[in-house]
Amino acid sequence: MYRTHTCGELRIENAGQQTTLAGWVQRVRNLGAMTFIDLRDRYGITQLVIDDKASAELKAAANELGREFVVQVKGTVRERESKNSKMTTGDIEIQVAEISVLSPSDVPPFTIQNDTDGGDELRMKYRYLDLRREAVRENLVLRSKMAIIVRNYLDSLNFIETETPVLIKSTPEGARDFVVPSRMNPGEFYALPQSPQQLKQLLMVAGFDRYYQIVKCFRDEDLRADRQPEFTQIDCEMAFVEQNDVLNTFEGLTRHLFREVKGFDPGEFHRMPFAEAMEKYGSDKPDIRFGMTFNDITALAQGKDFPVFNSAEYIVAICAEGCAEYTRKQLDALTEYMKRQQIGAKGLVYVKYGADGSLKSSVDKFYDETDLKKWADACGAKPGDLLLILSGEKAKTQIQMGALRLEMARQLNLMDKNVFCPLWVVDFPLLEWDEDTSRWHAMHHPFTSPKPEDIAMLDTEPGKVRANAYDLVINGVEIGGGSVRIFDSGLQAKMFGLLGFTPEQAQYQFGFLMNAFKYGAPPHAGIAFGFDRLVSMFAGLDSIRDVIAFPKNNTGRDVMMDAPSTIANEQLDELNLKVEIKEVKK
Amino acid sequence: MYRTHTCGELRIENAGQQTTLAGWVQRVRNLGAMTFIDLRDRYGITQLVIDDKASAELKAAANELGREFVVQVKGTVRERESKNSKMTTGDIEIQVAEISVLSPSDVPPFTIQNDTDGGDELRMKYRYLDLRREAVRENLVLRSKMAIIVRNYLDSLNFIETETPVLIKSTPEGARDFVVPSRMNPGEFYALPQSPQQLKQLLMVAGFDRYYQIVKCFRDEDLRADRQPEFTQIDCEMAFVEQNDVLNTFEGLTRHLFREVKGFDPGEFHRMPFAEAMEKYGSDKPDIRFGMTFNDITALAQGKDFPVFNSAEYIVAICAEGCAEYTRKQLDALTEYMKRQQIGAKGLVYVKYGADGSLKSSVDKFYDETDLKKWADACGAKPGDLLLILSGEKAKTQIQMGALRLEMARQLNLMDKNVFCPLWVVDFPLLEWDEDTSRWHAMHHPFTSPKPEDIAMLDTEPGKVRANAYDLVINGVEIGGGSVRIFDSGLQAKMFGLLGFTPEQAQYQFGFLMNAFKYGAPPHAGIAFGFDRLVSMFAGLDSIRDVIAFPKNNTGRDVMMDAPSTIANEQLDELNLKVEIKEVKK
Repeated sequence: MYRTHTCGELRIENAGQQTTLAGWVQRVRNLGAMTFIDLRDRYGITQLVIDDKASAELKAAANELGREFVVQVKGTVRERESKNSKMTTGDIEIQVAEISVLSPSDVPPFTIQNDTDGGDELRMKYRYLDLRREAVRENLVLRSKMAIIVRNYLDSLNFIETETPVLIKSTPEGARDFVVPSRMNPGEFYALPQSPQQLKQLLMVAGFDRYYQIVKCFRDEDLRADRQPEFTQIDCEMAFVEQNDVLNTFEGLTRHLFREVKGFDPGEFHRMPFAEAMEKYGSDKPDIRFGMTFNDITALAQGKDFPVFNSAEYIVAICAEGCAEYTRKQLDALTEYMKRQQIGAKGLVYVKYGADGSLKSSVDKFYDETDLKKWADACGAKPGDLLLILSGEKAKTQIQMGALRLEMARQLNLMDKNVFCPLWVVDFPLLEWDEDTSRWHAMHHPFTSPKPEDIAMLDTEPGKVRANAYDLVINGVEIGGGSVRIFDSGLQAKMFGLLGFTPEQAQYQFGFLMNAFKYGAPPHAGIAFGFDRLVSMFAGLDSIRDVIAFPKNNTGRDVMMDAPSTIANEQLDELNLKVEIKEVKK
Repeated sequence: MYRTHTCGELRIENAGQQTTLAGWVQRVRNLGAMTFIDLRDRYGITQLVIDDKASAELKAAANELGREFVVQVKGTVRERESKNSKMTTGDIEIQVAEISVLSPSDVPPFTIQNDTDGGDELRMKYRYLDLRREAVRENLVLRSKMAIIVRNYLDSLNFIETETPVLIKSTPEGARDFVVPSRMNPGEFYALPQSPQQLKQLLMVAGFDRYYQIVKCFRDEDLRADRQPEFTQIDCEMAFVEQNDVLNTFEGLTRHLFREVKGFDPGEFHRMPFAEAMEKYGSDKPDIRFGMTFNDITALAQGKDFPVFNSAEYIVAICAEGCAEYTRKQLDALTEYMKRQQIGAKGLVYVKYGADGSLKSSVDKFYDETDLKKWADACGAKPGDLLLILSGEKAKTQIQMGALRLEMARQLNLMDKNVFCPLWVVDFPLLEWDEDTSRWHAMHHPFTSPKPEDIAMLDTEPGKVRANAYDLVINGVEIGGGSVRIFDSGLQAKMFGLLGFTPEQAQYQFGFLMNAFKYGAPPHAGIAFGFDRLVSMFAGLDSIRDVIAFPKNNTGRDVMMDAPSTIANEQLDELNLKVEIKEVKK
């Protein structure tokens, strides 16, 4: 060992002791008579002192030190004259007797402190230096802590951690697979798993009863904001359970994490059907930290002379509390926000419910105060509030209003990062219609079980069939999701049929799972949590990148390693491959 | 929940209780008046009874059941008339009131019991059925148990579990990489890690201090017996430590595993330099459960008229206790064994030390009893023992004698599976000469530190330089290995030079690591344990395949999923790839 103590360990009780520390030079302050050095390691910072009684040699050595030098020092712990109550080691300092440089350092490309001057690209290129910053490292320490809490919790409930293979069969359902050419099987490819879905279901068929794994998954997608080509799931499956058992088990896990990590209980986990979430929040992942729920005023608002409303399938209002004084400029900005291409609203109607009880709207030409008062009452508005109203095709308008609700919450600071409101969204539709391919897609995945009472509608109104599928949403972020699975090969075959697979395609892609169902498959259900997302939420961060040690950028590159890179022609030959770049995208 | 209890849970204390169980039908015994059903789940087997008082409907339902049907039963726990002390539930049975088939089963392709009639290929194709067998499942339960013990132990020592990326940069040092074409970076490839070696070293540079991960690694090798293209490592790295600290830490981990899993302490972890291991056991992973160590009798045996010995660099003997009565046939068979191509000895000399004190050898023409007595004494042989002697070029002869020693141990039953003798082999050579490429190879890997006292020899006699490298060997099996790392970019550059890299190649391949060393790298060292191997040793198994849920066969195929497989041409186009099979190997 190069040290007897870490840099976060020594206290006033250690005064008088000999100690050896090792770490990085955070900074050197040469005050003439005295030199102070802050020595840093993972555990903290300890102040070193070379005072005027020190040897000329030692003083010279101290003067040679630069930021980020790695040094070993021997000395005596002593009480500080001016204590620093902000540091755990702030009561003491080390009177240095000996100092040796273990590794010098060039001047780092950015400063290693929480408020760094390094830009994003520079910090990613030198990620090993970025990770030295306490704020960044603590995110990864939190990740490690959360992982072991999850494991021990699931282990205590008899879940078996089972590693599933990374080199599996390619199944072109869902997102694009990353593939791995097989040298030993020329012309053939493995795929990297988008999730171990079928394998965990096979473990249930195998009688493992309860399975979990914290596992890397892969998706070759064009990276949207905050997506990574490789990401980590807490992946679970249980046999002989119903939906409620899964919800209770993972509510227990989530509650346990909150208690252990954040020191408080998150309270009730509400449950809300998908249909209600869309109706009230215009989102399948509503943020329920605040209200501002939707009010359908279609009936109230139609029948006057406003053609836009009269021709609308749906007219919806939210009440922004205390916003009656919004200026023309603010309202115009909101309208512009709603008209952006990503949202696509045609316009925005408002009603100002003045503190004096007056009601003024952008549609005063068509509606008098009596009309507007009805709308205000329907929204539970009171004087001083602002109504915001959208109309149009129902499904689209709901989503637009969902975006407006979030924007108003941001403007009104309703999204408190220290408040956590967990919510189970349940009863998702089994299928969704894809306009592009003109066929049904599985909303969750093709193994999700329809609700038994809806099975009859599979043949008549497949779009209305609800699934035994559920998502855990916290503060508007989807933390995880899962479903009760089909465990009957007949029903599974029917599902594949609905999804447009020929029996041959289904057999080629999923044959091993359907075959497995022929040998006594137990009822089973499962869930997967996005671990990166979960940790970043617990860390109070907006991006998952900050909880990943070596993340990739949005073209899938690791700029530190400079990966991906070209490989030798001999290696391509061995793999029976030829690179043929048709269009240069770079 | 489909059950109130598991099939391994009910005891005599539960007699009289109502219960609902769910599981697989292990077997049905119809004794006319009574029908007995063994119901199985992961937790055990419970006997169900449908007695003569049961309804005709229930009797009929019971008669419909076949092996591996999944059923749910409701009934009453009652004391058995004839108890089965071999089963934990053997004191009770369930008087069935209701039975429902949750899933029928076709007749399985082999019987689901520990002694199965299924051949290896069939069991792998239907691995989900193979995993139902208790013996197989228990291996995976053990694996899960060992994983969490390892994690909690390392966590308690402040190791941070850190996930390193799976999509990394290809480095053609060592074995062949699996590669992953990047769609977003045309013509470029990621590699799957053979180990997170450089990344964990970067975590040390980043100040993580202690890192661990139980992590999948990948090697595209022609699969020798008991190798898998993907395998799992317990991967660790520590900063500010010396070799001894690593050895003590992982000796602690191993000892903890033995205590927790096997219930005993494995005793002393011996430490042996590589040179001694070769000298005494002819192996870098000696099995020290038994002695039969080498005796160099070169000086004693030379100088007579036996030209084979006189021209040999090295003459070595082992003493096989109590084998003086080996027959001509047995000795001929041993000689044949040694002459096999894999071993390649030219011949085998023996000396029988008769119980009567007589000494007879296969080289009586050249040596009299006085000569032979000297050899016997050198080997510590006593009457009744057999000396076995090989000669030739030293390094080769040592390895041949190592094989003979193991063969004799097998014949003499000296390898007790219930005895565990851990051993650290230390002081490995830094480099080994590769005849094929006429250059030095890193024996461990290019990041391994030479012993400081040997650094001067790097320029003069590189083959003699010892490394700060170590392997943990248990019962002749290499469980893990590691080294103190180079943390100086100058020394690292020199190593790359010795290994035949031009500075440009080294920079292209390892630039990010060498750059990192410029910003204050701490001294660091690490280790990796082969987790599959460790579990299989604890399970008393010979193959790692038995501790992997979904293993691949020796052409790298998953015969259950039928992976790898061909992929669509559109996918190849997107990846800018073309398959060109030059020679059909299949």
